[in-house]
Amino acid sequence: MTDVLAQLATVLEARKQADAGESYVASLYQSGTDKILKKLGEEATEIVIAGKGGDRDEIIYETADLWFHSMVLLAHNNIDYQLVLEELDRRFGLSGLTEKANRTKS
Amino acid sequence: MTDVLAQLATVLEARKQADAGESYVASLYQSGTDKILKKLGEEATEIVIAGKGGDRDEIIYETADLWFHSMVLLAHNNIDYQLVLEELDRRFGLSGLTEKANRTKS
Amino acid sequence: MTDVLAQLATVLEARKQADAGESYVASLYQSGTDKILKKLGEEATEIVIAGKGGDRDEIIYETADLWFHSMVLLAHNNIDYQLVLEELDRRFGLSGLTEKANRTKS
Amino acid sequence: MTDVLAQLATVLEARKQADAGESYVASLYQSGTDKILKKLGEEATEIVIAGKGGDRDEIIYETADLWFHSMVLLAHNNIDYQLVLEELDRRFGLSGLTEKANRTKS
Repeated sequence: MTDVLAQLATVLEARKQADAGESYVASLYQSGTDKILKKLGEEATEIVIAGKGGDRDEIIYETADLWFHSMVLLAHNNIDYQLVLEELDRRFGLSGLTEKANRTKS
Repeated sequence: MTDVLAQLATVLEARKQADAGESYVASLYQSGTDKILKKLGEEATEIVIAGKGGDRDEIIYETADLWFHSMVLLAHNNIDYQLVLEELDRRFGLSGLTEKANRTKS
Repeated sequence: MTDVLAQLATVLEARKQADAGESYVASLYQSGTDKILKKLGEEATEIVIAGKGGDRDEIIYETADLWFHSMVLLAHNNIDYQLVLEELDRRFGLSGLTEKANRTKS
Repeated sequence: MTDVLAQLATVLEARKQADAGESYVASLYQSGTDKILKKLGEEATEIVIAGKGGDRDEIIYETADLWFHSMVLLAHNNIDYQLVLEELDRRFGLSGLTEKANRTKS
């Protein structure tokens, strides 16, 4: 399951060669940055609505939508999604935090 | 790098035992759903601003923030983040899409 | 021009009797709260994009969209828009603030 | 009550001469466009949360916040708020719509 983001990144890269009429992702690329950002804003609103409503399936569904469109934004800007994971790793010091968390739990 | 989300999920779970005064994540849990959703909305706005500005480092930074807070929302609702990856895998049929993408490229 | 909000409120009230197939506002009412909130979130994202882009006409256009859909939310909840103006008046103490502002300028 | 927006616009204009340390609005102007847009995004998220929650007082309060910060955005860009009302009037053809709405009701 850990490779889903890697696979998605591969697909999003490949879609840059696709026809906008046949691929949703290609149509987003062609519409440009503003359209991608509007979709991101829409999905963020929908996750807020789902989160406030408290429906687990909707939260999962809308989070998937949000992650998907943020991956599209990264791809459109030729940014490797692994840089985001590295930023998470660096900022929240995950290795250290995990150790500390484990110590706290024991 | 693929294990960053798994490590983050472990940390977020451990933080449920932490003191709100000592952990940002614990303070978010304690403040409750509305506070977590407000943070998500803020981060979404910041990614839109960063995306419109076109600064790569800001896009990476804000995407990390957005993913982080959506992981907090999942943890707060006791939802395994892997269900989101499964949803991405299922909805976008990544295996199939990858094949198709590869065929399109060849 | 000051009566535009009053006229809009009258129209929005009248639309509660309209057919969803013939009126955009009636279709929003029928779709319900989540749909109206999604539109509000979309318009907010678009005003952020317009504001970051710095195009005056787009800022005006998107602000009109945002105010329109917030008026729809109020009408859908049977809330008089004048209560919002009263809140602005009360919270920011406009009479007092105006005086103080005028004094500051003189 | 119809003059609240006009009074607010006057105050917001006057605040351009104020010290950022003594006026919230002046501090927003000084922080710049990104900060004002972030506040707009935050307020939009809060109105979505309030609208989903269905609490009338919160809806009124958050709508006031949203209108206030959109008035700040207009002022920061030297845009007369009446242009937004004119856009609402023009786009939704309020005079005509009112007539049609009245006819529909009769």
